[in-house]
Amino acid sequence: MKIIDLTHLLNGDIPTWNGTCGFHSEIKMDYPKGCRVQQYKMHAGVGTHMDAPSHFYKDGKHIADMPLEQLIVPGHVIDVTKRRAPDLLISPADLKAYEEKHGKIEKNSLVIGYTGWGAFWNDTTRYRNADAKGKMHFPGFSKKAAEFLLERDIAGLGIDTLSPDGSNHGFPVHELILGAGKYILENLTNLDKLPPKGALCLALPIKVDQGTEAAVRAVALLSATFPTVK
Amino acid sequence: MKIIDLTHLLNGDIPTWNGTCGFHSEIKMDYPKGCRVQQYKMHAGVGTHMDAPSHFYKDGKHIADMPLEQLIVPGHVIDVTKRRAPDLLISPADLKAYEEKHGKIEKNSLVIGYTGWGAFWNDTTRYRNADAKGKMHFPGFSKKAAEFLLERDIAGLGIDTLSPDGSNHGFPVHELILGAGKYILENLTNLDKLPPKGALCLALPIKVDQGTEAAVRAVALLSATFPTVK
Repeated sequence: MKIIDLTHLLNGDIPTWNGTCGFHSEIKMDYPKGCRVQQYKMHAGVGTHMDAPSHFYKDGKHIADMPLEQLIVPGHVIDVTKRRAPDLLISPADLKAYEEKHGKIEKNSLVIGYTGWGAFWNDTTRYRNADAKGKMHFPGFSKKAAEFLLERDIAGLGIDTLSPDGSNHGFPVHELILGAGKYILENLTNLDKLPPKGALCLALPIKVDQGTEAAVRAVALLSATFPTVK
Repeated sequence: MKIIDLTHLLNGDIPTWNGTCGFHSEIKMDYPKGCRVQQYKMHAGVGTHMDAPSHFYKDGKHIADMPLEQLIVPGHVIDVTKRRAPDLLISPADLKAYEEKHGKIEKNSLVIGYTGWGAFWNDTTRYRNADAKGKMHFPGFSKKAAEFLLERDIAGLGIDTLSPDGSNHGFPVHELILGAGKYILENLTNLDKLPPKGALCLALPIKVDQGTEAAVRAVALLSATFPTVK
């Protein structure tokens, strides 16, 4: 079995949506007097993380209530890295081109936009790419692409930027995806290591009661067979 | 594929090692003006969590450095629920009895002590079970059991209590397991739903840079076949 880690490291230097420090670790006890014990303070939506429907909708499912059957699913990777641009929106035409080449996007799958923007992760200014008015510019999906994916009844939508809405701060993609009870994964990494299809993707958030967002450990499993229980 | 969640819900009411509140969530922004944004503050070792070797040893591996190949492994469940008692220590005899029935414990597997103590999770006082001097009493593994398991070269050790050392606050099991570069999982749940062997167990911590402990999402997968990448 081959395992790919789709998760960025969590520390105080990583890019965040609002530009403030997203993760803080404090040592509460230490060697040699005892073991090292830490306390973490974090934005709920920090690093590689999940938005649950309740992030946008009061009656939407919380992080802890997302069924695991929706979080452990086949992945479809839409590679638009050749057209990487700050305001690129992945369109229905991109999704149709993917389907012509790789077959129909499966029901209950994770669709990942691989834009190549993740290459800027270690340069917060470039990754956030805010203009003079503070508006950020990076790739995302168009509203029509989200509508197309909901017709396919996907499980969730992932991307290697801070938001699947890209530069559209009206958030139509968030509204559609979360409004349909699906989840969003932001700041994925190592997408160059994923095949266009055939990986089993696991996006597992910490199980926060009433959580609207949470850090996940996202991994992809390739080419393996489970043991069968006797 | 059948999926079993081995993870407790995270909130401010759950039992913790030192008895203080282990998880705190604060709402920083809310509907209807915007989306609901939260901030989390948590013990690094809260709820269902992992101890990395660096929890005890300065030069030990941190949480983020644990190889995924060690975190996604076959599970062996040692059921001692019939003898559940506050000071029970799972012994080499228990492990040998398991092996006689189910075959040798595999290299790079997760060995889980299923003591039944998890039944008290929702009653913090009973789960922590501190005596008049504040010393907690619940089941664990003996030092000799840990030595036996290191001979088998396991990946990690899990249990449904606050510590695999049980009532032994000298922590020989922590020292042996973490000292050998293995991990410990504490406060696992739903162990009654696991077969003695045959499950693929995934214990995925949030990827904390320099982290010595971290909350995990732990799941078990049963009876499934991965898709094969073409």
